[in-house]
Amino acid sequence: MNSHFGDLLAQAVQAKRSAICVGLDPRWSSLPKKLTEGIEQRDRGSIARITAQFCCEVIDAVASLAPVVKPQAAFFEQLGCEGMVALDTVVRFARNAGMLVLLDGKRGDIGTTAQAYAQAYLGQDSGWGCDALTVNPYLGDDTLEPFVDCARERGAGIFVLVKTSNPGSGFLQDCRIRRDDTDETDRVYEKMADLVQSRALATVGTSGYGIVGAVVGATYPNQLSELRHRIPNAWILIPGYGAQGGTASDVSRGFDQRGLGAIVNSSRGIIFAYELAQYSGLSLNWQDAVASATRDMAEQLRFARSSVI
Amino acid sequence: MNSHFGDLLAQAVQAKRSAICVGLDPRWSSLPKKLTEGIEQRDRGSIARITAQFCCEVIDAVASLAPVVKPQAAFFEQLGCEGMVALDTVVRFARNAGMLVLLDGKRGDIGTTAQAYAQAYLGQDSGWGCDALTVNPYLGDDTLEPFVDCARERGAGIFVLVKTSNPGSGFLQDCRIRRDDTDETDRVYEKMADLVQSRALATVGTSGYGIVGAVVGATYPNQLSELRHRIPNAWILIPGYGAQGGTASDVSRGFDQRGLGAIVNSSRGIIFAYELAQYSGLSLNWQDAVASATRDMAEQLRFARSSVI
Repeated sequence: MNSHFGDLLAQAVQAKRSAICVGLDPRWSSLPKKLTEGIEQRDRGSIARITAQFCCEVIDAVASLAPVVKPQAAFFEQLGCEGMVALDTVVRFARNAGMLVLLDGKRGDIGTTAQAYAQAYLGQDSGWGCDALTVNPYLGDDTLEPFVDCARERGAGIFVLVKTSNPGSGFLQDCRIRRDDTDETDRVYEKMADLVQSRALATVGTSGYGIVGAVVGATYPNQLSELRHRIPNAWILIPGYGAQGGTASDVSRGFDQRGLGAIVNSSRGIIFAYELAQYSGLSLNWQDAVASATRDMAEQLRFARSSVI
Repeated sequence: MNSHFGDLLAQAVQAKRSAICVGLDPRWSSLPKKLTEGIEQRDRGSIARITAQFCCEVIDAVASLAPVVKPQAAFFEQLGCEGMVALDTVVRFARNAGMLVLLDGKRGDIGTTAQAYAQAYLGQDSGWGCDALTVNPYLGDDTLEPFVDCARERGAGIFVLVKTSNPGSGFLQDCRIRRDDTDETDRVYEKMADLVQSRALATVGTSGYGIVGAVVGATYPNQLSELRHRIPNAWILIPGYGAQGGTASDVSRGFDQRGLGAIVNSSRGIIFAYELAQYSGLSLNWQDAVASATRDMAEQLRFARSSVI
C-alpha cells in the first residue's frame, strides 16, 4: 500500500512531539561568516556548495527536534544550475536525517504543465524527491487536479496557498465574492479554503487529515481560527511566525484538540538564530544556537497549545 | 541607459513582422522519433541533452520568423538538475539567435523570496538570463514590486497572469468582487488587469508600452477585447491559440491599431507540427514542418489583424 502524506505528517509530529517546520531560506549574506569568508560574490559554484553545506548542518542541528524542513526554492534557483544541484543535496540529506521535506515552490499551471511540476518535485522517484510542495491556486480548481493525482500516486502531499502572511495578501485574498445564485458572500481565501477542504476530505487518511493542505499566515490569527474550523480535514502550514510577527498564541489557533492539524514554519528565527541577541551572547557555536532556537520554539508552541486545549 | 523590455518587444515584433511567441513545451513523448530512439526512460542525462538539442533546432527553424520564444519551466524542471542545465543551454541559444526569451515559470512569492526569483531569471547576469518571466499575482499587489523593480533595473519584463486559457480559469478569475466603498463590482481578472495597467503605465516606454504585461487566454476572446481597452499600456501574452481552441480572429482582438500590444503563443501547433496531418503528409523533415507551421501562423495573424484594423 502507498504511504499517505497526511498520516505520515501526523506520525512525524507525534513522534517528535513538535509541529515545527524549519524554513530553509539560505540568504548568502546571513550565513555564518565562518562559512562564507573568502568566497567571491561571483563564484556561484562555491556559493551553491556552501549553501548546501549550511543547510545540511542546519538539518543536523534540528532533525531530532522538528518533523519537517521547508527549503525555499527561490533561494536555490537564484544560484542557477549549481543551486538546483544544492537543492538536490539538501533534500536527500533531510530525508536521510528522517525529516519530511516540503518544497516551497508555489508552483501552479494548467494540465500537462501542472503534471510536469508535480512529477518534478513530488515523491522519491522525482527530480528532487520531496514529500510535499506548495501550490498556487490562481489558475483555478482544474489546475490542482494534476498535483493531487500525482501526490496521491506517490504518497506525497500539497499545500495550497489560501491566506498568505504578507501585508498585501488582502489585495486579492480578502475580496468578497458572491456565492453561486445567492446573496451570501465569501472572501476569496474562504472559497479557496473550501476547495482545499473538498480535496482533503476526498483523500482523508486514518489520521483524519488528507493529502491536500492549506497555507495560512500566522499574521492573520482570526482567519486562522476561522479556517481551522472550516477545513477540518486539511493540514495547515503556518508561515509568518517570529520574524514576520506571528506569536505562539496566534499559531495555537491552527491546531486541533489532539495538537495536530498544523505545522508552524520559522525560517530566519531558527536558521539565523546566531544573529539574534538572545543567542549571540551565549558564546554558542552557530549550530548550537540553531538547535537552541528550535528547542525554545517547540517549548513555546507546546505551552501555547496546552493553554488552548 | 538601460534597455526597456516594452520597447525591445515592439522593435522585435516590427523587425520580424510577426507577433508569434513560440512555446517550448518539450514533452519527451512528442519529440521526433529520430532524436529519441534508443534512449532509455531512466537515462535522464540523455533525455535532458536531447531535449535541449530539440529546442535549439526548433529555435534555428523559427528564429527569423518569430520575435519571442517561451520555454515552459516545468518541462525542464521535470528533468531534474540536468533539465535546468538544458534550460540554460536553450536560453543562451535563443538569445544568440536574436530571439527574446520569456520564461514561463509563473513564479510568485513575498518580499525577498520574490526578489530571489526575479534575480534567478531576469536579465543577462541572472542564473538563466531571460528577458521576461510570467508571474502569478495570487499573493497580492505588494508581491509584484520586487519583480517590477528587478525587471526595471535589468532591462527585463514580467507578464502577470490575469485571465488564463484553461477551462477552470473562471473558478477564481471570473468571480465578481465589490470595488472599494461602492456598489460596483469588478471581476477578479479585471482587478488584476487594473494592477497590471498601473505598473505598465508607471514604466511606459517610447513604444507606449511598459515592462509589465498581462497573460490573457485566446480561449476567452470577449475578455481579450475588453482587456485590450482596459490595459492600453500593457503587452498581452496570449496563450491558447491553436491546440487549445483559440483562432486567429480571436487573438486579433489583442492588438492595437499599429499591430502591436500582443504576442500570440503557440506551443504544440508549432514545435510538434510534424505530427499534424497538414504537415506530416508533405514529406518535410521535422524542422521544415516547424518552420512551415510558423510561417502559416504568421500569415493567419497578419490576415486576421488586417481584417480588424
